[in-house]
Amino acid sequence: MQTAATAQLALLLEVTATPKPGNVDRERDHDDLRFEQFMAGAVGARDGLVAMTDPSIGVGEAFERAVAGMGERAERNTQFGALLVLAPLVRAAAREDCTLDGDGDGDGDGDGVERVVADTTVADAAGFYRAFEHVDVAVRDPPEGMEPLDVRRGADAVPALRERELTLSEVMERSADRDGVAREWVDGHERVFRAARAIADLDGPVPDRAAEVFLELLSREPDTFVADTHGTGTAHSVMVRAQEAREGGPELVRAFAESLVAEGVNPGTTADLVAGALFVAMERDGVTP
Amino acid sequence: MQTAATAQLALLLEVTATPKPGNVDRERDHDDLRFEQFMAGAVGARDGLVAMTDPSIGVGEAFERAVAGMGERAERNTQFGALLVLAPLVRAAAREDCTLDGDGDGDGDGDGVERVVADTTVADAAGFYRAFEHVDVAVRDPPEGMEPLDVRRGADAVPALRERELTLSEVMERSADRDGVAREWVDGHERVFRAARAIADLDGPVPDRAAEVFLELLSREPDTFVADTHGTGTAHSVMVRAQEAREGGPELVRAFAESLVAEGVNPGTTADLVAGALFVAMERDGVTP
Repeated sequence: MQTAATAQLALLLEVTATPKPGNVDRERDHDDLRFEQFMAGAVGARDGLVAMTDPSIGVGEAFERAVAGMGERAERNTQFGALLVLAPLVRAAAREDCTLDGDGDGDGDGDGVERVVADTTVADAAGFYRAFEHVDVAVRDPPEGMEPLDVRRGADAVPALRERELTLSEVMERSADRDGVAREWVDGHERVFRAARAIADLDGPVPDRAAEVFLELLSREPDTFVADTHGTGTAHSVMVRAQEAREGGPELVRAFAESLVAEGVNPGTTADLVAGALFVAMERDGVTP
Repeated sequence: MQTAATAQLALLLEVTATPKPGNVDRERDHDDLRFEQFMAGAVGARDGLVAMTDPSIGVGEAFERAVAGMGERAERNTQFGALLVLAPLVRAAAREDCTLDGDGDGDGDGDGVERVVADTTVADAAGFYRAFEHVDVAVRDPPEGMEPLDVRRGADAVPALRERELTLSEVMERSADRDGVAREWVDGHERVFRAARAIADLDGPVPDRAAEVFLELLSREPDTFVADTHGTGTAHSVMVRAQEAREGGPELVRAFAESLVAEGVNPGTTADLVAGALFVAMERDGVTP
């Protein structure tokens, strides 16, 4: 129960972290998405987060429950990606035979999140697809030949999943090149664990640390949600502007934040990674707000 | 489960409501109390809120659990008073033989919160006293002759409670003249129900409505937490200044908010009532963020 509560708190601290350029944060709302709706989403996700800690429930089904609860409370998609980042982390934290060390040495000992991902099944993949039925999630068209597995088909894609015997891990592999959350699933949550370490090592209020780490992540790799919604050119330019803002200091960061909101550019994948990092920083490193 | 989730969301929306002069809100922190600590408190309180919906658990014990969980997560007192306002409301919403109508006609039909309060026992009173052991709560010295029942004694006061056969309802009656939360318990949560109606009737984002209702409540009666911590003179003056700020418009409200924070004056009881009102507005009136 404590692990699920920590995951819920990670969702709340993520949206509180400010400034988080282009995203809803403690100081900024979007026209169609407000701060308090993220709170509602985090409240609604709680039972699904509890399910993520229950080894008798598949990770995919637990994820679907979290998304369904979120959508019911927030009446829109607030934290789909963040919940997808969290699912294997929360399960790894809860499983007795896993630890959340993220050492990435691949020896199977303690590489909890990699083990959780490796253990996913076709049923988990089905849960993941069903989750898309609960809220509108902005996604790109699938690559050629992958139409039967378009996530927007929701449960209708499940027979195709079963026929091809695709586990959730294999589904993630297929979009890892263009989706930053899927890449974490494939890479042992490497960026998340690194970001968690940075949050733990910084000083000051936890949301401020999370905002700093958000900007660092954004300045290092193009945000794949921005790429999905505005194209890879914009995603690359946002990355470069994030580098300049970091070097320029708080004033420039603030201006960058305002301009991304004005342009409707929302680096949502980077925010999802920060939610995962906040969870790891609290659960593994003992960070408290 | 949904009722407990709604109560948790009420706690989160209360702290988000801005400006809430003198209190931590979306735009303001205190030196020793930050926004994110209220989030942690709301996360930690969840299991206790679930207990409030479980008829097999006493209201007093459920309240104690909520306070214990809040204190564990927030590492300080963030929502003690709000949880005390919520406890009978949540129980009334959950009990099959109660409704949350707050019609205040005293006929016992549907006056759910009054029935819950009337049903409290000595064991509930003991739970209430034990709750004070989990966090530091600012309270005044007890009246003469009431020293054995000083809440700061925590569990040590339980034998005196048992000897005098005091129910939680009777404990509340004894401080209703000087504690605005206890007065709600005695008055059938009258101010809370009126505030809930106001929140439901207003337009716009729910936290903005809650902030407006906060100021209205503050302008009508002296805040008893301010009276406890700064004296009745200050509490009265804050009430008058709240009236002036309301009449003066947003700029004056903002200045009032800044000045109360600077003076360290925190109308916490009024904020507690708003948390209860948000719960009722969502649970009874179908308000969603």
